[in-house]
Amino acid sequence: MKYSEILMPTLKEEPSESEITSHSLTLRAGLIRKIASGIYAFLPVGFKVLKKIEEIIREEMNRSGAIELLLPVVQPSEQWKESGRWGEYGPEMFRLKDRNQRDFCLGPTHEELITTLARLNLKSYRDLPKNLYQIQVKFRDEIRPRYGLLRAREFIMKDAYSFCENEEDLDKIYQKMHAAYSNIVERIGLKYRIVEADTGLIGGKSSHEFMIIAKEGEEKLVYCPKCSYASNFDMAKFSVGTDEGKKSGENNLSNIKEVHTPGITDIEKLAKFLKVKTRQTVKTILVADRDSRIYAFLVRGDRELNIGRAGKFLDKELGLADSADSSSDLKIGYLGPVKLQEEIEIYADNSLKEINNLIVGANKKDYHLTGVNHPRDFKIKQWGYFSYPTSGDRCLDCGSALEFEKGIEIGHIFKLGKKYSEKMNARFLDKDGKLKPFIMGCYGIGVSRILAAVIEQNHDDKGIIWPTSIAPFLVNLIATTTRDKDITAAADRIHEILLDLGEEVLYDNRDISAGIKFKDSDLIGIPLRFIVGKNFLKSKKIDVETRKDQKKLSLSLEEIPQFIEDFKKENP
Amino acid sequence: MKYSEILMPTLKEEPSESEITSHSLTLRAGLIRKIASGIYAFLPVGFKVLKKIEEIIREEMNRSGAIELLLPVVQPSEQWKESGRWGEYGPEMFRLKDRNQRDFCLGPTHEELITTLARLNLKSYRDLPKNLYQIQVKFRDEIRPRYGLLRAREFIMKDAYSFCENEEDLDKIYQKMHAAYSNIVERIGLKYRIVEADTGLIGGKSSHEFMIIAKEGEEKLVYCPKCSYASNFDMAKFSVGTDEGKKSGENNLSNIKEVHTPGITDIEKLAKFLKVKTRQTVKTILVADRDSRIYAFLVRGDRELNIGRAGKFLDKELGLADSADSSSDLKIGYLGPVKLQEEIEIYADNSLKEINNLIVGANKKDYHLTGVNHPRDFKIKQWGYFSYPTSGDRCLDCGSALEFEKGIEIGHIFKLGKKYSEKMNARFLDKDGKLKPFIMGCYGIGVSRILAAVIEQNHDDKGIIWPTSIAPFLVNLIATTTRDKDITAAADRIHEILLDLGEEVLYDNRDISAGIKFKDSDLIGIPLRFIVGKNFLKSKKIDVETRKDQKKLSLSLEEIPQFIEDFKKENP
Repeated sequence: MKYSEILMPTLKEEPSESEITSHSLTLRAGLIRKIASGIYAFLPVGFKVLKKIEEIIREEMNRSGAIELLLPVVQPSEQWKESGRWGEYGPEMFRLKDRNQRDFCLGPTHEELITTLARLNLKSYRDLPKNLYQIQVKFRDEIRPRYGLLRAREFIMKDAYSFCENEEDLDKIYQKMHAAYSNIVERIGLKYRIVEADTGLIGGKSSHEFMIIAKEGEEKLVYCPKCSYASNFDMAKFSVGTDEGKKSGENNLSNIKEVHTPGITDIEKLAKFLKVKTRQTVKTILVADRDSRIYAFLVRGDRELNIGRAGKFLDKELGLADSADSSSDLKIGYLGPVKLQEEIEIYADNSLKEINNLIVGANKKDYHLTGVNHPRDFKIKQWGYFSYPTSGDRCLDCGSALEFEKGIEIGHIFKLGKKYSEKMNARFLDKDGKLKPFIMGCYGIGVSRILAAVIEQNHDDKGIIWPTSIAPFLVNLIATTTRDKDITAAADRIHEILLDLGEEVLYDNRDISAGIKFKDSDLIGIPLRFIVGKNFLKSKKIDVETRKDQKKLSLSLEEIPQFIEDFKKENP
Repeated sequence: MKYSEILMPTLKEEPSESEITSHSLTLRAGLIRKIASGIYAFLPVGFKVLKKIEEIIREEMNRSGAIELLLPVVQPSEQWKESGRWGEYGPEMFRLKDRNQRDFCLGPTHEELITTLARLNLKSYRDLPKNLYQIQVKFRDEIRPRYGLLRAREFIMKDAYSFCENEEDLDKIYQKMHAAYSNIVERIGLKYRIVEADTGLIGGKSSHEFMIIAKEGEEKLVYCPKCSYASNFDMAKFSVGTDEGKKSGENNLSNIKEVHTPGITDIEKLAKFLKVKTRQTVKTILVADRDSRIYAFLVRGDRELNIGRAGKFLDKELGLADSADSSSDLKIGYLGPVKLQEEIEIYADNSLKEINNLIVGANKKDYHLTGVNHPRDFKIKQWGYFSYPTSGDRCLDCGSALEFEKGIEIGHIFKLGKKYSEKMNARFLDKDGKLKPFIMGCYGIGVSRILAAVIEQNHDDKGIIWPTSIAPFLVNLIATTTRDKDITAAADRIHEILLDLGEEVLYDNRDISAGIKFKDSDLIGIPLRFIVGKNFLKSKKIDVETRKDQKKLSLSLEEIPQFIEDFKKENP
């Protein structure tokens, strides 16, 4: 395709709206344009990449035995009311009314619709298992759309939903999806990690996220460099690093002492003031459930409460207790477990287990207590993992020190079990003649998100470096000038040779300086660059550059086919 | 693919919701399921057909030089306000607000967005011409969704938009689209007609519709069997058939006579009462423009007013004048041109030109006038074509009698000119250094609509008859029983042979009666049926049936490849 025929408006300047590398590069390379906050148009080259990603996903889904269909974007509220999520989903769901004032939403996900279809069309165990998928536009009215395609309000996703007779069949399909997603990211050529994850609003028993490793990734993840353990930050299990602050035996227990700490309400200042390490102090955090019942969680001063895990532990939806909500004699900033109101249960993070002589708030303005020990001075209802891991924490499985990374979540697979089928009364007739709810799974992978994640992982300061698998073109053919007939004729001929080989070529035939062509070429990131200029007229050799490794070589016309074949083998 | 692996829930019974053959058959063959009024899910086989239609469209669009991209579904109101259509589009547009109460719509079409993109990204005549297209879901909140996919509220469309420097380039792209659309419907294998059409809410100078001929089609169309003239009903140009009721010369002019016609307010009754043909009578219809100005249109009693053409003639948006709106001394049912209020201009249909001694309302309750002649008795402001054609009307170009047909509109191409580019200030820098508005065109073809239209044109009383071009499978392989190991083994082997040939096969391996398999096979309408049963064990020959021509033959395994090759050649 000639540059003049396509629409790929590159930008020289950094767009003011861009917040992250992939966002900037998708705009600068003319792949997308913003239409509204979090809403983008895919320009032709961006669309080409999107289609290639889609095709890899489709092939791997089909190979796994999944069947493609297409559900509508606009969904009636009725099914969402059946599942209970019409109420649960907040303003993140785009809602609208039709001309008859009936309620609809723009599908943020499709569990409700597919369960309705299964209920009506999968009648018997003979119809099972089924794994149905679609590649479709989805909508989430994010409170803060950002990072371009990474957190958009309208985006493209592949979502699959499986229906099985029993847990064993679900496990099999879950494993197939696990494998299919691994194949997808490997075929695209990405460094990734599969981590244990939270099931969130989708629900279900267990889930894994597929994370593309990227420096600017939004998600923190933790993994064991020795064994296979990996988790997202929220779900991380670990044993607390015990290099310091170990419990030093009964003998050393101090007595409680009240210390005047005027205006010192944060841990850093407190530790400085008392000349101790922050890990000697305790954070006492009050949280409330939906019924406004208050609980206290204790974590070591150098750690943060993981409120999600705390909620999972109690099986409650928890939020930080607003100081206005809690009774007025609770002194925020000076909270502590000693003589806390009796009705407030105390849960303590395992990180506190090994430490004596804690420093805690005195439940009295401007005072803390030192030398606090349990169970002598306060009662813990239960111990648990309520904090996020930090450097030095160890793998629960093998004891190695955990490591940390940042990533971009591009896929998420869930074992849903009966969550939707029971609520929506979606049942099949089993071999024994009884109606049973489907055992379900769901499996999502972000198509437009992958496009951005690929760029996050594959770029340099000049631009994108497309993996060959999804590059919009294999070759960027550049005629250094269009004002020399011989050069133009040679470039035209090489264009023909490449087209005859069946390769996708972007032929830059613009009447502009070679310098701009090279800059655009780096920016767009096509794997191979063929340069036809004066050199060619002299030597009859094309100057070739590889985008990724920046290798330079020169080729005669006869050598082109073999070179292309070898390059594609080495760069699949 | 084995029947047990796919989801294709066929229905024995006629679904109560179906209103037209294609609607019934898409439901019965398990291609689609209704999710809400006018909103459907495409089940796997329906989706397969949809993809094949899409692929044919994509190939022809690419071949024409158009470039694919993807615009968002959710569109901000701002651009629609610029074009003026935020107000013009009525409740047919799905509207919604985001969490910040900003107005958006679900794209019913994309002129506004693409013009915005062109404005920002096509700067110079060097960037032109461009023809940009997408294949995407569209939304129209129809007042009465019906006929399944034919009038849905959510549907799939290919829409293209061209940007040119001048009218000549627009003409060239328009002709390319005309050719591409013809190729598309011909490759699918449809009988169609291209008709002159109205530009409606899209606007612009001229347009053509692509009509699939179908008995139950919603659209009436008219064509000349001799020359190439064809038009949709609303836009038809014709000369009035003059076989009867010719003007018979001045001498025969009667005098006006007032006749008492109590309670007779319709033409049929009036003609009966007066013992004349309806074509001797006149319908006087009052219409109002947006400023409530009233106009009278006269058409022959046996014809209907074409209010759209009347509006085009006056360049006004016209509606029937409500009797409540018109002044109280206008007697609806007894209206006539004689002594009508002076401020009301009278326009007369050409069909009245040749007729003397008209019968008209007397503008007085319960009275008509006979022997009315113009210009003696009333004044006509202008003559024109204000009625729909009827049998006997003739081609304006060649004089042959016009013929009538019904069809389904599946494509529509428009020359928009500057309509959007001027309103939205979308300009490019021309060769002479001046900013000029783009000369635009737009070109739509309904993807999901074609699916239904194909069925409307290709079915019998047993089910669908897919053209090979878009059939979900080429072969329906039926094992008459699954309880005979030899038959199963033979069918498995034939399945392998067909797969090795690269053909798409639906292998019906269900443990049900052969009778049901045959019925489903007819219903689903796959071009070829291969039957493997007792016959095969005896003769080693497969019974083959063609769905379309209902030919029967038998084949040895060795003959399969040649037969398939020949069949595809003859049925492309």
